Amino acid sequence: MPDLPKSIRINEEGPREGFQIESGSIPTIRKVELIDALSETGLHHMQIVSFVNPKRVPGQADAEEVARTIRKKPGVDYTAVWLNEKGLERAIATGGLTIEGRISMCASEGFLKRNNNKSFDEQIAYNHRAIAMYKAHGIPVVRGSIMAAFGCNFEGDIDPAKVVAIVGQIFDMAAEHDLDFDVIGLSDTMAWATPVSIQRVVGAVRDKYPDARISLHLHDTRGMAIANAITGLQMGVDMYDASVAGLGGCPFAGHKGAAGNVCTEDLVFMCDEMGIATGVDLERLTECARLAEDIVGHPLPGSVMKGGSLRRLRNAVAAI
Amino acid sequence: MPDLPKSIRINEEGPREGFQIESGSIPTIRKVELIDALSETGLHHMQIVSFVNPKRVPGQADAEEVARTIRKKPGVDYTAVWLNEKGLERAIATGGLTIEGRISMCASEGFLKRNNNKSFDEQIAYNHRAIAMYKAHGIPVVRGSIMAAFGCNFEGDIDPAKVVAIVGQIFDMAAEHDLDFDVIGLSDTMAWATPVSIQRVVGAVRDKYPDARISLHLHDTRGMAIANAITGLQMGVDMYDASVAGLGGCPFAGHKGAAGNVCTEDLVFMCDEMGIATGVDLERLTECARLAEDIVGHPLPGSVMKGGSLRRLRNAVAAI
Repeated sequence: MPDLPKSIRINEEGPREGFQIESGSIPTIRKVELIDALSETGLHHMQIVSFVNPKRVPGQADAEEVARTIRKKPGVDYTAVWLNEKGLERAIATGGLTIEGRISMCASEGFLKRNNNKSFDEQIAYNHRAIAMYKAHGIPVVRGSIMAAFGCNFEGDIDPAKVVAIVGQIFDMAAEHDLDFDVIGLSDTMAWATPVSIQRVVGAVRDKYPDARISLHLHDTRGMAIANAITGLQMGVDMYDASVAGLGGCPFAGHKGAAGNVCTEDLVFMCDEMGIATGVDLERLTECARLAEDIVGHPLPGSVMKGGSLRRLRNAVAAI
Repeated sequence: MPDLPKSIRINEEGPREGFQIESGSIPTIRKVELIDALSETGLHHMQIVSFVNPKRVPGQADAEEVARTIRKKPGVDYTAVWLNEKGLERAIATGGLTIEGRISMCASEGFLKRNNNKSFDEQIAYNHRAIAMYKAHGIPVVRGSIMAAFGCNFEGDIDPAKVVAIVGQIFDMAAEHDLDFDVIGLSDTMAWATPVSIQRVVGAVRDKYPDARISLHLHDTRGMAIANAITGLQMGVDMYDASVAGLGGCPFAGHKGAAGNVCTEDLVFMCDEMGIATGVDLERLTECARLAEDIVGHPLPGSVMKGGSLRRLRNAVAAI
């Protein structure tokens, strides 16, 4: 596997993605407990809360309290999500978070309408306003993101050329505002991706924008997340969103069976075994996955937390 | 993905692997119900029962009754597993099964001892006796199989050279008995494989035996089964054991968290999306997966049965 990256950067999204979809109310203190435990695993990037309408997403109504209560570990970026100016203002006002601006686009107007209540043009206009706001607050814009980059429940398959065109719009907007970033996040928001579409879309973006650094956001609704991740790794993609224990799902995707992101500890296990550095302690992370299961009170989909890593087995064999 | 096969052959193992591990007693009639439903999906190869010691595997005590009660569909091979002469005699006496001989080896003597209560030499001697018995009954020997080909809970990592040497032993035995087959099954019995070890072991066997047709048996205990399958597909491997809904696990692997084979409908979904023919109707198979969940009475790990295929979504989009 000649194109494998030597190391990858994982953006842990479990606390944010996971707790917003759980039907029961999860006590703030338990969310904090998981985030604090994750801080000790070696993860350096963690999306911990959403500043969204608490009426639409009651599980994130305590976003400020969670963000203020956690024991922030030096060297760990704690980030957040917002969908509009009001959310951004809440994130800034909370304090202590790493506020990262992004240009957020969507490859499907149907999904954009349902998820963000915006048309394409409205989304572009929003991005211009958001960029202006980021600049006013001295917030760096660190990436462009494209939702539904591999397919959409409301629009079907997405032409890779459409994704490439949107990457162009993102870089055009960036240039217009003198922004300097190279990260393009491609989100398989509704789990349409398979290894072939990963290759097609990532390949098409690479062909046109060879200097873009691609980040993948892979949902596991159809069991493809880890197969899509290995395909990304084989193409040298070195940034992945992931979710401890496979926490999560998208409450607005019009899809009850929607699953979370690729499971963080399964991804770390695969990377460990393949000699790709993640910086994460798998055993500690596996403990966090079990903690997450305890907190939500039902089984979560991660595998390594049930099957165990190979390190202990190797140690046991070596001790014979 | 230039080396992808145009089609693959799936050997469904759910009924055999799944029902032998379930703790509760599953009525014979329900096992038959699942097998009969699977017969209508387009699957052509199905391992339905084990003729093993009913004291060790109570869930297979009704093997004869299951095999005799199912509605056998023309064109479908119904196969079985046995570990010794007595089991083979039961399989033959049952009638109606496709009796396929195999030369069964193991890359780990520690696992062989625990699973089959044999040393390497005893296993080779058993194979010679079994081949003689197959010949006496006019049973074709169709493959060689190697358990624990990617790693072992009791011996650790397995050197690919050891697997290659065992393939050599298998072909030597075959030559000694004038047998003619080209299939070598590589079993990740205890779920040690990752995409890198799939590449190493399959690659090593291929280098030495380019004419061998490789079949993979991939357990999902650490969430790697579908990533290992895509790696196999990328290497042109066109035979896979799989388990509907992800039924199964190995009761003797000394590992409580052991999961079943790669989930059949998830594998079929991936192949459908990639243009690889399986001959299987995904929608019917997904119904079988839900039936399997109903029969065992607890959630099973398959994803597509929860998330749904993309065909219905595409049809819905097309109908707008």
